Amino acid sequence: MSQAIRFRPQVELAEKVGVDLKKVRHPHYGRYLEEFVPGQVFVHPRGFTFLRAQMEAFSRTYMQCNPLYLNDQYARASGFSGLLASPQMVFNVVLSLGVQNDSEKAMANLGYYDAQFLRPVQAMDTIRSLTKVIDRKERGAGKPGIVTIRTLGINQNDQVVLQYERKIMVAGQGDRPPTTPLPTSADGLMPSFPWVDDADVILPDFPERLPAGLTGPNSWFEDFAVGEVIVHANGRTITDEHLPLTYAVGNTHPLHFDRVFSSGLSGKMSGDPIVYGGLVFAWLEGLASRDVSENSIWELGFTEGYHTQPSIAGDTVAALSRVLAAEEAPGALARQFGVVSLQLIGVKNISAANALAKYGEDLFIKENDKKEMGKEKIEEKIFEIERRLLIRKRS
Amino acid sequence: MSQAIRFRPQVELAEKVGVDLKKVRHPHYGRYLEEFVPGQVFVHPRGFTFLRAQMEAFSRTYMQCNPLYLNDQYARASGFSGLLASPQMVFNVVLSLGVQNDSEKAMANLGYYDAQFLRPVQAMDTIRSLTKVIDRKERGAGKPGIVTIRTLGINQNDQVVLQYERKIMVAGQGDRPPTTPLPTSADGLMPSFPWVDDADVILPDFPERLPAGLTGPNSWFEDFAVGEVIVHANGRTITDEHLPLTYAVGNTHPLHFDRVFSSGLSGKMSGDPIVYGGLVFAWLEGLASRDVSENSIWELGFTEGYHTQPSIAGDTVAALSRVLAAEEAPGALARQFGVVSLQLIGVKNISAANALAKYGEDLFIKENDKKEMGKEKIEEKIFEIERRLLIRKRS
Amino acid sequence: MSQAIRFRPQVELAEKVGVDLKKVRHPHYGRYLEEFVPGQVFVHPRGFTFLRAQMEAFSRTYMQCNPLYLNDQYARASGFSGLLASPQMVFNVVLSLGVQNDSEKAMANLGYYDAQFLRPVQAMDTIRSLTKVIDRKERGAGKPGIVTIRTLGINQNDQVVLQYERKIMVAGQGDRPPTTPLPTSADGLMPSFPWVDDADVILPDFPERLPAGLTGPNSWFEDFAVGEVIVHANGRTITDEHLPLTYAVGNTHPLHFDRVFSSGLSGKMSGDPIVYGGLVFAWLEGLASRDVSENSIWELGFTEGYHTQPSIAGDTVAALSRVLAAEEAPGALARQFGVVSLQLIGVKNISAANALAKYGEDLFIKENDKKEMGKEKIEEKIFEIERRLLIRKRS
Repeated sequence: MSQAIRFRPQVELAEKVGVDLKKVRHPHYGRYLEEFVPGQVFVHPRGFTFLRAQMEAFSRTYMQCNPLYLNDQYARASGFSGLLASPQMVFNVVLSLGVQNDSEKAMANLGYYDAQFLRPVQAMDTIRSLTKVIDRKERGAGKPGIVTIRTLGINQNDQVVLQYERKIMVAGQGDRPPTTPLPTSADGLMPSFPWVDDADVILPDFPERLPAGLTGPNSWFEDFAVGEVIVHANGRTITDEHLPLTYAVGNTHPLHFDRVFSSGLSGKMSGDPIVYGGLVFAWLEGLASRDVSENSIWELGFTEGYHTQPSIAGDTVAALSRVLAAEEAPGALARQFGVVSLQLIGVKNISAANALAKYGEDLFIKENDKKEMGKEKIEEKIFEIERRLLIRKRS
Repeated sequence: MSQAIRFRPQVELAEKVGVDLKKVRHPHYGRYLEEFVPGQVFVHPRGFTFLRAQMEAFSRTYMQCNPLYLNDQYARASGFSGLLASPQMVFNVVLSLGVQNDSEKAMANLGYYDAQFLRPVQAMDTIRSLTKVIDRKERGAGKPGIVTIRTLGINQNDQVVLQYERKIMVAGQGDRPPTTPLPTSADGLMPSFPWVDDADVILPDFPERLPAGLTGPNSWFEDFAVGEVIVHANGRTITDEHLPLTYAVGNTHPLHFDRVFSSGLSGKMSGDPIVYGGLVFAWLEGLASRDVSENSIWELGFTEGYHTQPSIAGDTVAALSRVLAAEEAPGALARQFGVVSLQLIGVKNISAANALAKYGEDLFIKENDKKEMGKEKIEEKIFEIERRLLIRKRS
Repeated sequence: MSQAIRFRPQVELAEKVGVDLKKVRHPHYGRYLEEFVPGQVFVHPRGFTFLRAQMEAFSRTYMQCNPLYLNDQYARASGFSGLLASPQMVFNVVLSLGVQNDSEKAMANLGYYDAQFLRPVQAMDTIRSLTKVIDRKERGAGKPGIVTIRTLGINQNDQVVLQYERKIMVAGQGDRPPTTPLPTSADGLMPSFPWVDDADVILPDFPERLPAGLTGPNSWFEDFAVGEVIVHANGRTITDEHLPLTYAVGNTHPLHFDRVFSSGLSGKMSGDPIVYGGLVFAWLEGLASRDVSENSIWELGFTEGYHTQPSIAGDTVAALSRVLAAEEAPGALARQFGVVSLQLIGVKNISAANALAKYGEDLFIKENDKKEMGKEKIEEKIFEIERRLLIRKRS
């Protein structure tokens, strides 16, 4: 099972080997606009083994309150085989693994669409990520274009755990050298890409009696009334922690951890490293969790997600939720659960209560729709998304 | 064991659902003075599964030197079934889980009393926390009152692992809306609260030969002489790390991680987020550990613990210990162990040696006793407590 | 297996025990120049149990891209019994455990030599560290001397996993009290020190088919041409995270986490805590990993490693690699692997590409050789080392 090998002793070599400045390689990852080819599939590098302590650390960092992600006993009593990776972590990891191919040269993340969590991720699951290029829209010479991609997270049993669509803004190559090409696949064929338009969600058979006593009093299915606004009391100041947290989920974009790079940019992104948007989403979801998802049994997915302003270390983020729908769950699930749709809004450097007092219903209008409505964008607003959860009934 | 469920595709809803600013909920946690009812028992939310890597991460963050918490082999050779959660972590977690009910509206933590660690906590133990309100002292209209509570940490086998008493200063409700009420218990009865006044400590049967060679030369039972002062050489600068560390142990008080909240306060607590006191205690204990507890086999408990000044990111904390007693352990334990009582003192932004040179024996007088004695409080002093440990004998 | 013990209730003692300022102990660790005795062996305290989540956290913090350290499945498919601790982590831990005896009083780390990784470290391995004093060079009264030491990392089966040599600069004791003496060994004999000059490396029997598809396209053995320079695109801004990261690997030197100590020094090291050099090395290696070691199967070792400038929080580090040799692996290994020698250079607060443009081949000359060559030292250059890796062949 093991072998003993004798290598030659290492001797100093540097001064004996001449430096040849004509032989310099500059490997660059990501892709310029022209390099995206619709139909192309990227198998992203490395993969990611989910470990129990790391799953819990993620949930704690982002202030998650649902015990499914914090309490192994509770997760088991809920029908899962142990502590669950939070869907937020799954989303963050699957997106981040793809950055090296999808967006390490992107200028902006434009939106998340139709994200669906299809299966639990648990300790020792190893997830890999694949992306298919759906569309490339050029907008004229010298202008960045828009690329639409779909991404899958796939576990070690080749089962899809997450799928979502994303639009990114990407500049053309200009006079820059091309990026490092993809590795070629072993068989020379394009890898398969098992996206399913009308996908089943694989859930455990939930026990008759779900665990009691460890969750809040006001976040059961019956507590959600359509139209209602829920103001989440606490905010979270983001610190420099976000630099290491970026690669903790596998994201390789230097905008988030390389100040020499970020301060060399021009425009809105210039200066301190920008917080990777997935982390901002995670904090907002966590801040909301005590009031809306402590009794959630499954995060179904989200869509129409937009980061409307960047955040940097020192910013304090806060969240509000609005109830968009509250419906019976399909089939037998309806005995124990309902489906709640929520709009999640993020603000920064203002408390959620003050943001609501200051901006009222305008907080809940998509920022991109405002110009047409003759309304101003809200500077303190950083995020908007719609999400759907399967939530326990009280009875 | 699992089921496949088809949910309706998620469609955008936000613009179709009107915002009703008359239906706004502001869930608030913690409790105002009037909301505490002596005799009431709170079952705190979420619980906390202790994971091995997280236990070790805690010990490393707070600079713990006792190998029981860092070296699985050493812990096994000492009679435990594997790496031990440090009592500091157990204390931090049990207190923090209770913040949502006990002190998320508290103005100050006044003191810790009679903390007793009754059983080991090891990897995969899930701990829940319960609090009983013992006393509520009002001090007149407009003045904050003092609430006395007792808290238990209980494992998945319903065994108490920790119990302690705490006093907190809480403001009245005034014209603020009430906080979110407790969830009602399933049976409508007050939960039981198994505090034991004269509790046994459950310890392993220690092996005849305890492990040798990995601990310091000067912290065996025989090294402690009553009256002696031990100056711990190294300090620790606290960074912004304390914001995420707060919820890493489950603490939900925004004073510790929400700068919009903390800078909106008036008085001494206004400004940057205050370091949660449990973390300060943990650092001080860790800084002392190399000199006093590397050969400790059990932390019995502590009492008369006071945070006499707050700390913020950027502060450097340092510690001194004073030997208060060194006694034989009870019964057969006396062959291998003695009981050492220590006073632990914390200072900030001065080295421990300089603090001793500057203030001498006044460092060891409780700050609250000084007024009566005609003495000034010490501005650099941040903490004082008495602790008791079971420490190995050299032979 | 367990025992129930009743201890006397803890009562307050502090005010009853007088403070005796004549009985003050100041335990100090590390060693002054005169305290090093060639031939002496130190068994370092505590040891370190490697945990899976902690191994992965290390790799992520330092931006490691080789899936051996991130993907349990990939590591198994490569012939290992599970996720591998990165050699960087093993090096950081073994060195750090020794700081308390070797260098907690050191003024500077002068160089690393002849480091050899002899065996995999995997989850639940417990590593202890031993040091032997090889040489002590005094350079006259009042001048710091140079101590040469060798250090071993040894696992729970008494197998050496790492050995290396190190030179440190240490001041004499002067009029300071001596440091805390070593614990005496149980048998009174000097502990054995199994350094092997011409050591075998113990590797698994690698499978015929190694895993495909998760590593980069340009870092296979065939991609390395002698003389070539590889510029690693991304840098990493180091934050205050480095304070806790220091003791996360076991390092107890206050220069790295105690601002009262670091700002009290005079000279170049005065001010903010200096980043522990092992961490800087780890970041540089991680930044290079995507381009040079993603297809490495084993890190053989390194030598002639020098930290040529210190780093502090806020510095952004970046890396370049130069190919010094590319040779067939010995014996049967040659079918699948080659041995690549690389020079790794670190710079700060300048991008790697700009550093190369600015300094050209001078970047690759050892800083200590420059005076003799009539060249200036490079202020932005922080590190230089030669490393050797076993790298997969493409075919």
